[in-house]
Amino acid sequence: MPLTAEQSQEVETLREERQPTRREVAPALEELLYQPIPLLDHGFIRVIDYMGTDSAIVQAARVSYGRGTRKVNEDAGLINYLMRHRHTTPFEMCEIKFHIKLPIFIARQWIRHRTANVNEYSGRYSIMDKEFYIPAAEQLAAQSQSNRQGRGDVLKGREAARVLEILRKDAAQAYAHYGEMLNEDMDGNILQKGKTGLARELARMNLSLNFYTQWYWKIDLHNLLHFLSLRADAHAQYEIRIYAEAMLDILKRWLPVTHAAFMDYRMGGVSLSAKGLAVIKRLIAGEKVTQEQSGMSKGEWRELMESLQPAGSG
Amino acid sequence: MPLTAEQSQEVETLREERQPTRREVAPALEELLYQPIPLLDHGFIRVIDYMGTDSAIVQAARVSYGRGTRKVNEDAGLINYLMRHRHTTPFEMCEIKFHIKLPIFIARQWIRHRTANVNEYSGRYSIMDKEFYIPAAEQLAAQSQSNRQGRGDVLKGREAARVLEILRKDAAQAYAHYGEMLNEDMDGNILQKGKTGLARELARMNLSLNFYTQWYWKIDLHNLLHFLSLRADAHAQYEIRIYAEAMLDILKRWLPVTHAAFMDYRMGGVSLSAKGLAVIKRLIAGEKVTQEQSGMSKGEWRELMESLQPAGSG
Amino acid sequence: MPLTAEQSQEVETLREERQPTRREVAPALEELLYQPIPLLDHGFIRVIDYMGTDSAIVQAARVSYGRGTRKVNEDAGLINYLMRHRHTTPFEMCEIKFHIKLPIFIARQWIRHRTANVNEYSGRYSIMDKEFYIPAAEQLAAQSQSNRQGRGDVLKGREAARVLEILRKDAAQAYAHYGEMLNEDMDGNILQKGKTGLARELARMNLSLNFYTQWYWKIDLHNLLHFLSLRADAHAQYEIRIYAEAMLDILKRWLPVTHAAFMDYRMGGVSLSAKGLAVIKRLIAGEKVTQEQSGMSKGEWRELMESLQPAGSG
Amino acid sequence: MPLTAEQSQEVETLREERQPTRREVAPALEELLYQPIPLLDHGFIRVIDYMGTDSAIVQAARVSYGRGTRKVNEDAGLINYLMRHRHTTPFEMCEIKFHIKLPIFIARQWIRHRTANVNEYSGRYSIMDKEFYIPAAEQLAAQSQSNRQGRGDVLKGREAARVLEILRKDAAQAYAHYGEMLNEDMDGNILQKGKTGLARELARMNLSLNFYTQWYWKIDLHNLLHFLSLRADAHAQYEIRIYAEAMLDILKRWLPVTHAAFMDYRMGGVSLSAKGLAVIKRLIAGEKVTQEQSGMSKGEWRELMESLQPAGSG
Repeated sequence: MPLTAEQSQEVETLREERQPTRREVAPALEELLYQPIPLLDHGFIRVIDYMGTDSAIVQAARVSYGRGTRKVNEDAGLINYLMRHRHTTPFEMCEIKFHIKLPIFIARQWIRHRTANVNEYSGRYSIMDKEFYIPAAEQLAAQSQSNRQGRGDVLKGREAARVLEILRKDAAQAYAHYGEMLNEDMDGNILQKGKTGLARELARMNLSLNFYTQWYWKIDLHNLLHFLSLRADAHAQYEIRIYAEAMLDILKRWLPVTHAAFMDYRMGGVSLSAKGLAVIKRLIAGEKVTQEQSGMSKGEWRELMESLQPAGSG
Repeated sequence: MPLTAEQSQEVETLREERQPTRREVAPALEELLYQPIPLLDHGFIRVIDYMGTDSAIVQAARVSYGRGTRKVNEDAGLINYLMRHRHTTPFEMCEIKFHIKLPIFIARQWIRHRTANVNEYSGRYSIMDKEFYIPAAEQLAAQSQSNRQGRGDVLKGREAARVLEILRKDAAQAYAHYGEMLNEDMDGNILQKGKTGLARELARMNLSLNFYTQWYWKIDLHNLLHFLSLRADAHAQYEIRIYAEAMLDILKRWLPVTHAAFMDYRMGGVSLSAKGLAVIKRLIAGEKVTQEQSGMSKGEWRELMESLQPAGSG
Repeated sequence: MPLTAEQSQEVETLREERQPTRREVAPALEELLYQPIPLLDHGFIRVIDYMGTDSAIVQAARVSYGRGTRKVNEDAGLINYLMRHRHTTPFEMCEIKFHIKLPIFIARQWIRHRTANVNEYSGRYSIMDKEFYIPAAEQLAAQSQSNRQGRGDVLKGREAARVLEILRKDAAQAYAHYGEMLNEDMDGNILQKGKTGLARELARMNLSLNFYTQWYWKIDLHNLLHFLSLRADAHAQYEIRIYAEAMLDILKRWLPVTHAAFMDYRMGGVSLSAKGLAVIKRLIAGEKVTQEQSGMSKGEWRELMESLQPAGSG
Repeated sequence: MPLTAEQSQEVETLREERQPTRREVAPALEELLYQPIPLLDHGFIRVIDYMGTDSAIVQAARVSYGRGTRKVNEDAGLINYLMRHRHTTPFEMCEIKFHIKLPIFIARQWIRHRTANVNEYSGRYSIMDKEFYIPAAEQLAAQSQSNRQGRGDVLKGREAARVLEILRKDAAQAYAHYGEMLNEDMDGNILQKGKTGLARELARMNLSLNFYTQWYWKIDLHNLLHFLSLRADAHAQYEIRIYAEAMLDILKRWLPVTHAAFMDYRMGGVSLSAKGLAVIKRLIAGEKVTQEQSGMSKGEWRELMESLQPAGSG
């Protein structure tokens, strides 16, 4: 359970309050508000606030005085059109704010997406929690042989056990030493009289990258979709992908029409190069084409052929 | 009146709806929601949506599980501290969306603030409204003698009358010719059979820079404050300053604590250079200091002396 | 000729100087440096400065201590790989700065690309030039019937002549009245004694959107490519597209490998939705597919079929 | 020595080449180009490329056809004016690119500055170096008593020795276990036959936050100055401040006029609130003012009084 009893109580208190508003409301997302969705062994994602619904996109695209919406299918048609033609500005008119707890090595990938607002828990100011990520056994994968950035087969037996032992022991030791250097525990109690204690901004450097951090992260819809297209992708590292997948579920509750368009045009779609398009035209015309004839590199050819496999065989 | 009857009806319809939400609500801002605030002769600003209240800043600064707020004066103290020390990230956690109608030459200044989301009415796609800005008589100012970017005395008599005549006639003529080139009126009716009509994306080039445009504009609080510090300043052009001043009133309703801190630390404050600070230390010590001794340029010295004038004499 | 004799002389003076540098140099771009490339009737684009060559992309992708390059074909393979997989950060490591003169209605489209640095000639501070855009006869197009944002057939005969007459006369009159209101000519001479003259920041509102403005515009390569993918596209307005096309030529001189990859993967490529990909798999398998079976809208189906037309018939 | 012999050789090769360019050249910066400046125990900063000199700021501010510069003192006056009035866009016209090696916990602070281009060494793709930061004895500071984010007195004797022992042993052990889990050494040699080896993207999580990473970091001058105003400040953490101070030296070589203006208006300057300004006016008028009368909080009052101390006593 990622939250303490006190934290859970704070969340419950927030969830009980309801106030009237003239703003657009997304009822299916309201159900989820403030509630942590557990991820990995100690992480979570919580929706803290949001602005807009599907109709806010339509309203902005039409620079409307009222809601801007017409018939449901006209609105969906407009959202599809905007998504297909990459008219991105109306999607910037929705905004969402999350509270996220995640391992530091994942936070370091995440922060590379610059067009977002971030407020992170400060290890200069506060004492870090004793929580670190230990992968589940089925996630202990070997280095991929074909992709220098990916994972291959799952480790087994003694090798797997040894990895888990290292990760657990080293993190526990790093945290024990962190407290010893601070001369303070998580509640701010002095551990040993007569000692001074190292500054927090220094002591934290002994923690390993699997320790959890947390932040408030706020982003507009256009940039969220860009984040999801990269991080919910099959090539993303598992530990960030499951956050992205949880956000896809949140997106579906928040903006069902946009979610459907996004799944069709981005997540399920594919980009063809000029050479790739030329190959496809020839294949449709019934010609045989080989990699050598295509002008494509071997890697690019393989990727194209994979994307053209019948759905069942992928 | 900047809105048509139909547009006013759309606004009223929006204002009548109220739905329950678990999100933070700013009641004083809700009162204003969707309502156009008239500015200049045909412009307006309307708040369309917002995210967060003063407590959202506190909540993010504390990376809190609940509302994050404590006693009212502790929260205000924290907001003051963050403002004073330019800890800007918590202020990015609030967001506001406006619908704004404004003259094109002002829109061109406005858009220079890049960190915002914008959806503008498209003159490629739609026919522009017949609305152009004519300054009020007391705004017909001469070029400033002391400041190459500012205004001086107000024009009078025949010269003022002639300026107004030029602006009115030229804009009316530009619009009449715009319609003639389009061969279409604002409702899309063909004006003259047998003519083809020029493409909208071309015809619009005949309109002058005082024609009104409109857009949806969404921005986070930190960047809004930066915009206001530049555009609500006495040196800003009058026609953009009155929009900024209207936004200051909106800010006061939305986030009263932040508004107060902003007025104290930014709008009413002043930046001293190292040389300026050295002068002030000597003045406090009772020394006489001249511009020549200060190492400052004449312009800088004059600005410093102006900022130190007794409040009553400014 | 877009430059005065004095301006041409300034350009020549710059072009004559050469200094040694340890930085990477792109010789084919150096040839062009500072030289205005004329566009439209009074516009131009000039390269003022640049940072990096193709090898800077490779160097950053490899976080290298030296040049980072290996064999020419390995480097090209890496750039192709980065472009294909949208690894965008190495492309941000090159930068280019332009001086551009362009009509205001085009500047308003252009500035929507926010991730760039801009310094525009100020109409608050300076007097605007007497230069306005009049389209060439073959650009006087009607509104498109199929695309609400596009152009259709070219206007002819009396209608075309009348459009040109309106545009010329209205712009000339707007400028004459601008000078009259300023009571000043372009060289700052007072026109009529005893008159005060309207402030520049006000008088400029009488100018129409086809007047030229100019700016320094600096952008990193990744964002430049994004700009070009939208503005060198066949659907972009002609008056911005020719600037984008000139920049494609500049890109080819500056970064030939990146230019080739960009033409293949972006300009000549196409994005398929999940539905579009499913249709293509069925077409390759020799099935007949209709729009109704595809689940696609009519517009989307038409766009897909157009992209699959044999190269010769497009 | 932070570089291997091979890396040093690569740097030397780059430094030996010189080519002619028409671009602006900053000779004092050229001397430094590519050369690593050692920082902390294993870190460095190297200038890889730059765009512009002081005159590029002047040129853009004047939207000039030539170099844009006039007399040296006029140019300096303009740069001072732009800095004083926060006309930031001309400063965006210069750009600089660094290669930086720094501890991960500092990289995490650094990356919070979003308006920059970054290419980081990838621990998913490559094996991390065995280099970690151990503070010098005089940097082993206690937590500050007055400032929850700062450092206090230096640790001594056994406590200091124990901290260094912990940091060294834990980091060495973390790295040894990292290699064991990878089943690979830094040169990619398999350590033990029959074992599979954990994926790099997972094994790296065992490394602690004092391990070094490296990146290419490119930023425009305006955003660099903002970074420096925060990170070269006395309140910044020592381990990032010394990078900022090295960059101030680089700035002085690159853009001496801008550097001087920045030191006067930003680094040596101070911001006064409306309340602070009112206090100063009263002090200059010879009145006594107390914190209670000032309307300021105790913290704010203390900060104001500190900034007004005679230079000698600070």
